[in-house]
Amino acid sequence: MTPSTSPAQPNADVSADGPPQFDAAFRAQLAELFAWRRDVRRFRPDSLPEGALDALIRQATLAPSVGFSQPWRFVTVHDPDRRAAVAENFERCNAEALQAYSGDRARAYARLKLSGLREAPEHLAVFAAEATQRGHGVGRQTMPETLRYSVVTAVYTLWLAARAQGIGVGWVSILEPELVRRTLEVPESWSLVAYLCVGYPQEEHSDPELARYGWEARADDDEVIIRR
Amino acid sequence: MTPSTSPAQPNADVSADGPPQFDAAFRAQLAELFAWRRDVRRFRPDSLPEGALDALIRQATLAPSVGFSQPWRFVTVHDPDRRAAVAENFERCNAEALQAYSGDRARAYARLKLSGLREAPEHLAVFAAEATQRGHGVGRQTMPETLRYSVVTAVYTLWLAARAQGIGVGWVSILEPELVRRTLEVPESWSLVAYLCVGYPQEEHSDPELARYGWEARADDDEVIIRR
Repeated sequence: MTPSTSPAQPNADVSADGPPQFDAAFRAQLAELFAWRRDVRRFRPDSLPEGALDALIRQATLAPSVGFSQPWRFVTVHDPDRRAAVAENFERCNAEALQAYSGDRARAYARLKLSGLREAPEHLAVFAAEATQRGHGVGRQTMPETLRYSVVTAVYTLWLAARAQGIGVGWVSILEPELVRRTLEVPESWSLVAYLCVGYPQEEHSDPELARYGWEARADDDEVIIRR
Repeated sequence: MTPSTSPAQPNADVSADGPPQFDAAFRAQLAELFAWRRDVRRFRPDSLPEGALDALIRQATLAPSVGFSQPWRFVTVHDPDRRAAVAENFERCNAEALQAYSGDRARAYARLKLSGLREAPEHLAVFAAEATQRGHGVGRQTMPETLRYSVVTAVYTLWLAARAQGIGVGWVSILEPELVRRTLEVPESWSLVAYLCVGYPQEEHSDPELARYGWEARADDDEVIIRR
């Protein structure tokens, strides 16, 4: 798209209805959504309704992106061989990760369930198209990583939209990104940001599984808020 | 925190009320929130209510994090000299970025307003504590960048929670991360993920400013959804 050469006059806003008003009841429910989102690893076998995943992806494209670059690329993975290759890669990487621990910590690690790749009805890989021309480089000369960060916000948009429908998402990061990229036969210039399992959760919780199983506790405000 | 050595038995869930039920009306409002979020660069001078920014930060800590590492570090920036140093760095980096364009595109770039650093009532820098022991490394052996991605989800949580209160957020990435880190005197092991302007927006829009000013258009679904 060629930029307008006329004086800075924005196009008309698309909506005729004016901005939405969000009330206290909505904000309370939004806070509940944040609190009950969860990273899901225990899925029921039920399929999602036809079109549900595409609808979630479309919501995800409302996420912010640096320079409006929209670098997100959503790869729905249905082929059983490709899914199996990803699951095997997870299992190998997870076995290697276990070697980094010893004693009680190793025993605790071995008890954790860190992916639902074998059970989830949907697999969704999300890449950043590093070479996209969209956005014409705005905002990423000094912080090029913001391109991938834009993809993260899209992943999280999908995650929240899914949870609001009772659909669970689990982000699997114990994978070799290059193996996943080759398995899915996507361009070399795309970098894997997230590999997601999507489906209905077996359980609902307001606390992270890693907290519930004693792996890590919630930090106090003093640890994360600093004043300058 | 030492992991439990007892057999895998999770602690009791905190909530006594059971999981929230989200209905179609909430989902419709959530979709509106995603659609009207916006990256804000035009702020009114009004201060936020006392405690509002801290409350937003607390909501942000409900974001997902790899291994429950909670690596987000929120630095509220009130000192005028530090704020001015950041704004000056933006202005220099932005002038340099302009040099990368020519012709119509350079003229269009020069017309864009890419930060509200001089007007926003609040500055908030958000870092990733790269050396945190929280999470004990779970999930980030093969994809260490997920630590920073966790911070991105916290930023976006804050952004959505803010918009639901009518508060605007603008993410400024035209900055030198190391200069910002030194200006704010935070540990060398922290990496800057986002520098945010926070305040009440002058305008509300359902389309990105870069689309409205003709810099970039919204991508079609075919560009971003791939099937394998």
